[in-house]
Amino acid sequence: MLRFPSILHIDLKALQSNYKMLSTRAAMSETCGVVKADAYGLGADQVVRALYHAGCRTFFVAHLEEALQIDGQYPDIKIYVLNGLLTGEAEEFAAHETIFPVLNNLQDVSVWQNFAARQQKKLPAALHIDTGMNRLGLGTREYETLLSEKEQILQGIDIKFIMSHFSSADEKNHPETPRQAARFAEIMSHFPRVPASLSNSAGIFVSPDYHYDLVRPGMALYGLNPTPHTDNPMQPVVSLQTRILNIQTIKAGESVGYGAAYRAEKEETLATVNLGYADGFLRCLSNKGHLYWQGQACPIRGRVSMDLVTVSIDHLGEKPQAGDMMEVIGLSQSADDLAAAAGTIGYEILTSLGNRYRREYVQEDCW
Amino acid sequence: MLRFPSILHIDLKALQSNYKMLSTRAAMSETCGVVKADAYGLGADQVVRALYHAGCRTFFVAHLEEALQIDGQYPDIKIYVLNGLLTGEAEEFAAHETIFPVLNNLQDVSVWQNFAARQQKKLPAALHIDTGMNRLGLGTREYETLLSEKEQILQGIDIKFIMSHFSSADEKNHPETPRQAARFAEIMSHFPRVPASLSNSAGIFVSPDYHYDLVRPGMALYGLNPTPHTDNPMQPVVSLQTRILNIQTIKAGESVGYGAAYRAEKEETLATVNLGYADGFLRCLSNKGHLYWQGQACPIRGRVSMDLVTVSIDHLGEKPQAGDMMEVIGLSQSADDLAAAAGTIGYEILTSLGNRYRREYVQEDCW
Repeated sequence: MLRFPSILHIDLKALQSNYKMLSTRAAMSETCGVVKADAYGLGADQVVRALYHAGCRTFFVAHLEEALQIDGQYPDIKIYVLNGLLTGEAEEFAAHETIFPVLNNLQDVSVWQNFAARQQKKLPAALHIDTGMNRLGLGTREYETLLSEKEQILQGIDIKFIMSHFSSADEKNHPETPRQAARFAEIMSHFPRVPASLSNSAGIFVSPDYHYDLVRPGMALYGLNPTPHTDNPMQPVVSLQTRILNIQTIKAGESVGYGAAYRAEKEETLATVNLGYADGFLRCLSNKGHLYWQGQACPIRGRVSMDLVTVSIDHLGEKPQAGDMMEVIGLSQSADDLAAAAGTIGYEILTSLGNRYRREYVQEDCW
Repeated sequence: MLRFPSILHIDLKALQSNYKMLSTRAAMSETCGVVKADAYGLGADQVVRALYHAGCRTFFVAHLEEALQIDGQYPDIKIYVLNGLLTGEAEEFAAHETIFPVLNNLQDVSVWQNFAARQQKKLPAALHIDTGMNRLGLGTREYETLLSEKEQILQGIDIKFIMSHFSSADEKNHPETPRQAARFAEIMSHFPRVPASLSNSAGIFVSPDYHYDLVRPGMALYGLNPTPHTDNPMQPVVSLQTRILNIQTIKAGESVGYGAAYRAEKEETLATVNLGYADGFLRCLSNKGHLYWQGQACPIRGRVSMDLVTVSIDHLGEKPQAGDMMEVIGLSQSADDLAAAAGTIGYEILTSLGNRYRREYVQEDCW
């Protein structure tokens, strides 16, 4: 039997617990699932299945292609495409009854309206109005135009809900959050009978006042911490172990890896493991991050290579052997911890996970 | 017809030109192809096919799984697995006549020898002896053990070639390079009738003295610069364009993206494009990198999101429109340039390229 170089363990039961915890917390809302970017790198097919069995019926992706990958597996779900309508996509959207565009500007609105007119029927969509991200969503001027001729501009469009997106809900008491929420409340007042959605994972924890009709958690489902200022309320979903390929002792003055970027001050025992930046182990962890052996931190020596990382095991009493597994993400080091070491966020750690892992999914037997 | 959000253009003709240029430069050696990590993210199937048609017959991958993906497509190729023999893999290696392990330590050697003894035949492999990477390869002590009982330790193993790997050949006049080369020459003297391989892409350009019997280019094939201290002698292989989703003008004092990490000092026109860190556009390019519009640099505003990046187009005379494409990698910005902005190397840019691009391969009609 092949022994895979690295094992990525994805606990779909924990994912379901996280979904249920968020559903309970946002009990007056529908809890949706954000599964864009292949469900944050964890596998959209598996994740959608787990969320579906946990009761989730509304999903968000970034691209139409991602929606098409999910479509058809479950008759009673809805999939919203956050990045909106590219020119030429209207027909494809309309051909799938479970896939809906998020309209991000008046051009999107106009394309969808014209298409509805040609089809001679009302077409469904979500409407995204920006409240401060300045990324997607109708900006202030477009929103004012919309308000001035709302009935006409939205004619032929069945607005399923209006939405906006927090920029800084993960930062405690960030002034943007109440400012965006107030702006959104004002917008809602102009759409009195239309459902509303504002909160991402972090927003769910800021205040029940921001839950409205649909909440859109992503990262919290996957076990990342939606409240970075305090303990993580979510269950971990991802663990990653990699196999030791080689153990050796180098002499004082010898260097490790490319550019000879680490030089040993004294004799030192090293382990080289079977993953690298091509597996999403970010190269900026060179000479900085750690792997773990039985709960003990082993510092990275030298540069992260494409397929290999070398760590010091010099300080360990009982040392591992070639063939043993070291922890990359797990009990000793969360994805958020690894991200902090790399100067980034857990999201990027997850979405960077590569294709060379053996993926083991923990799931209920009865699906 | 769907209009894809981003297009990754891979010029296999340029790849073949690069292979031929390297073959000419290392004319006394066999020029192999390093195609690990899905051919540096560009697609192993397509890249192997192109290299095969350019004359390449020996390939290097990191993992056995990668070799199995290529195996069987061409009867007359050899595939070497750089990360060596994991326990339990010997049988799988032996079952494939075109796949060979690189033996990286005496444990690998012993496993392969024992397996050969059980099979009652000589089994082929490459032997990696370290000269200063201290990552994989027999270290000094193991090498001394090997020399003391060479016939016995290597009994039953058909050593196809010995190899080592440069740490710093891409840095001009780095003292490690001649030191490693001298060490390798000494090692070669103990294996008088065995072919030898030392040079990676950069090594090929340092000196013909280091070419020996096989050269192992990777990055140079893919158009990255093997001589960073001077102009890139290779043809570019990769270009990447992404589509503009939204254009808007924000007011002075308004912020962009997560954490409100960019704040406009004056009214500013922005474009939001359809890729993000889930597509391998590294998050550390936040507020730092550039995209290009008709040769003009457009600075990134705020944080790179998972699926979106926002840039300033305020300074452009004739401005692009939503639906237009901006250059991520191309004539204005090479993969190496983008890497420099992110504080990394072009290799990481390529191996991080995600799965959400439309991939267009330029190739000969006659394959």
